[in-house]
Amino acid sequence: MSAPVSPSASPSSSPSSSSPGSVSVSVLGLGMMGSALASALLDAGHRVTVWNRTFARTGPLADRGAVAVRTAAEAVAASELVILCLLDNGNVREVLDSLGEEAAGRTLVNLTNGTPRQARDLAVRAAGRGARYLDGGIMAVPQMIAGPAAYVFYSGDEKAFGEYESALAAFGGAQFVGADAGFAALYDIALLTGMYGMVVGVLQAFALARTENIPATEVAGPLTDWVGAMLTGARPWAEAIDSGEHLTDVSSLAVNHAAVPNFVETFRDQGLDPAFFEQLQKLLERGIERGHGADGLSRLADLLKK
Amino acid sequence: MSAPVSPSASPSSSPSSSSPGSVSVSVLGLGMMGSALASALLDAGHRVTVWNRTFARTGPLADRGAVAVRTAAEAVAASELVILCLLDNGNVREVLDSLGEEAAGRTLVNLTNGTPRQARDLAVRAAGRGARYLDGGIMAVPQMIAGPAAYVFYSGDEKAFGEYESALAAFGGAQFVGADAGFAALYDIALLTGMYGMVVGVLQAFALARTENIPATEVAGPLTDWVGAMLTGARPWAEAIDSGEHLTDVSSLAVNHAAVPNFVETFRDQGLDPAFFEQLQKLLERGIERGHGADGLSRLADLLKK
Ligand SMILES: NC(=O)c1ccc[n+]([C@@H]2O[C@H](COP(=O)([O-])OP(=O)(O)OC[C@H]3O[C@@H](n4cnc5c(N)ncnc54)[C@H](OP(=O)(O)O)[C@@H]3O)[C@@H](O)[C@H]2O)c1
Ligand SMILES: NC(=O)c1ccc[n+]([C@@H]2O[C@H](COP(=O)([O-])OP(=O)(O)OC[C@H]3O[C@@H](n4cnc5c(N)ncnc54)[C@H](OP(=O)(O)O)[C@@H]3O)[C@@H](O)[C@H]2O)c1
Repeated sequence: MSAPVSPSASPSSSPSSSSPGSVSVSVLGLGMMGSALASALLDAGHRVTVWNRTFARTGPLADRGAVAVRTAAEAVAASELVILCLLDNGNVREVLDSLGEEAAGRTLVNLTNGTPRQARDLAVRAAGRGARYLDGGIMAVPQMIAGPAAYVFYSGDEKAFGEYESALAAFGGAQFVGADAGFAALYDIALLTGMYGMVVGVLQAFALARTENIPATEVAGPLTDWVGAMLTGARPWAEAIDSGEHLTDVSSLAVNHAAVPNFVETFRDQGLDPAFFEQLQKLLERGIERGHGADGLSRLADLLKK
Repeated sequence: MSAPVSPSASPSSSPSSSSPGSVSVSVLGLGMMGSALASALLDAGHRVTVWNRTFARTGPLADRGAVAVRTAAEAVAASELVILCLLDNGNVREVLDSLGEEAAGRTLVNLTNGTPRQARDLAVRAAGRGARYLDGGIMAVPQMIAGPAAYVFYSGDEKAFGEYESALAAFGGAQFVGADAGFAALYDIALLTGMYGMVVGVLQAFALARTENIPATEVAGPLTDWVGAMLTGARPWAEAIDSGEHLTDVSSLAVNHAAVPNFVETFRDQGLDPAFFEQLQKLLERGIERGHGADGLSRLADLLKK
């Protein structure tokens, strides 16, 4: 194991690298995502050390040239840049707490899904161990990593980001969104919130079709075309939200309020859980009670405040 | 007013038309959508009669050559083809109930949002008055009507659909989905369910960004790119649902179950209502309890059954 190297003394193009721009990187956590990250780092020519709680999962990466180690501490000691991708930030905190002096001088990049608050807490804990901390939110599924559409939001130590930006480019785009370590998680959670809404909508649509024995694959084409077409409404909604001007000639809260009971009734008639639409209806009712019946759907963003 | 003409005796290319392919069409309901429909019929060269509860709204269409009448009965009497686009099907039933003999021989095309059950009931009521009935679900906002992406699902009287298909093409594409009058509403509700999920997701994302004073317009681009990219998952989910094979190497129920509490916590921390994610978490829990933790999100479609 090499001694800890301060990345500021050893930038990514350091002469200690095995090839130009190559850095030593450890990846902790080799689930579906961590394996894809480690694999992308190998493809990009970096010297990769891997650790996973269940050691057997290191096999495929070791076969491709990664060094597999048995403890998280060994992995952190092995590389200047340390990527963490575990199931949740509770696991990340446990790993941090299990370390001795190995973290000093390291740059920890935590790509585990978490909250802004968790990220800020981990940044403090990392600093307490003499490590630099970047939090990241991955905008990709594992299969997209290193592809043209994949990118990661980063926040926290901006200097560390600058030094390792080219190494992190192995995963796809890298977008720094702020020195507040919590910001990457906020952007990540925001974009994933949009995705989860879409996912829940689309899967409910398939479930509904199948109650009448209509194959989901028959509905998939028109459904994605329609949802994709309606997604172009996002920019006008954003403009309405930023300006506070929600009046519409497209589709009002009142029209939607008249329609949504049809969804509740249809879900019930077809033996499906109508909870999503019951909740939407409550939101629409609140909007109408407050006198916003002629406003567009963008007004709902306001109504989510507790 | 012309006497009722049976459309089977007077197809859309009938010599009584003022121009080839022109038919007499009445539009009942001139809200945002009904006005767009009437306008498209005028643009396509049809003879258009319009009625609206609030008469003043007929003005702009009368200026463009539509005949404005004071009662729904007059409007139904005026044309072989009658389009209804009211706020809800309760309004449509009231209008039907208010008619005398005018409906006999008419083809009623109801484009009001409603449930499959309501559509089947209205088909029976229309038949009781000697009218043919088509139910429709409009896949467009008013601004899209007559444009390349707009289309309407129709179900019910297939012969009537065949006769008026070219007239109905004034609105955009016309897709017949079954003789069961309820099917257009089912397809409509399914596609709109996908849309509502997306809408709720995207608006929550904007609300979240704004809790940290990030403008919604700054998030709109990355958000729509991301949701659009994830929407390509719909076809694989449909295939999983139809085949019953949900095992995944993308993102499991277990991974999502670990992540969703972060959304609940973040929404709460930022002063927003976390109800959407609390509900999603319940669904994920149910999936894991039933032993589906390694399955992909497509499994959720199964779990919506009551
Ligand atoms: N999959 C995606 O599409 C995706 C996309 C963006 C972000 N993410 C995020 O990436 C992270 C990993 O996701 P994934 O899909 O790779 O999940 P996964 O395939 O389920 O892998 C989970 C990883 O966490 C490890 N782990 C679990 N509990 C642990 C503990 N107590 N101590 C140490 N290690 C532990 C697992 O080790 P074992 O092998 O020993 O179980 C495994 O390496 C999550 O935060 C997820 O939200 C995933
Ligand atoms: N807007 C969209 O994006 C969209 C998209 C697809 C489908 N749709 C559906 O199209 C239908 C109409 O929507 P819209 O956007 O045009 O709504 P809107 O602008 O609010 O218009 C509602 C229409 O219904 C009439 N109405 C309301 N209550 C009535 C009653 N008791 N008796 C008779 N007429 C009554 C109104 O007449 P007054 O002028 O007298 O109030 C008006 O003509 C709804 O079912 C909606 O779900 C709308």
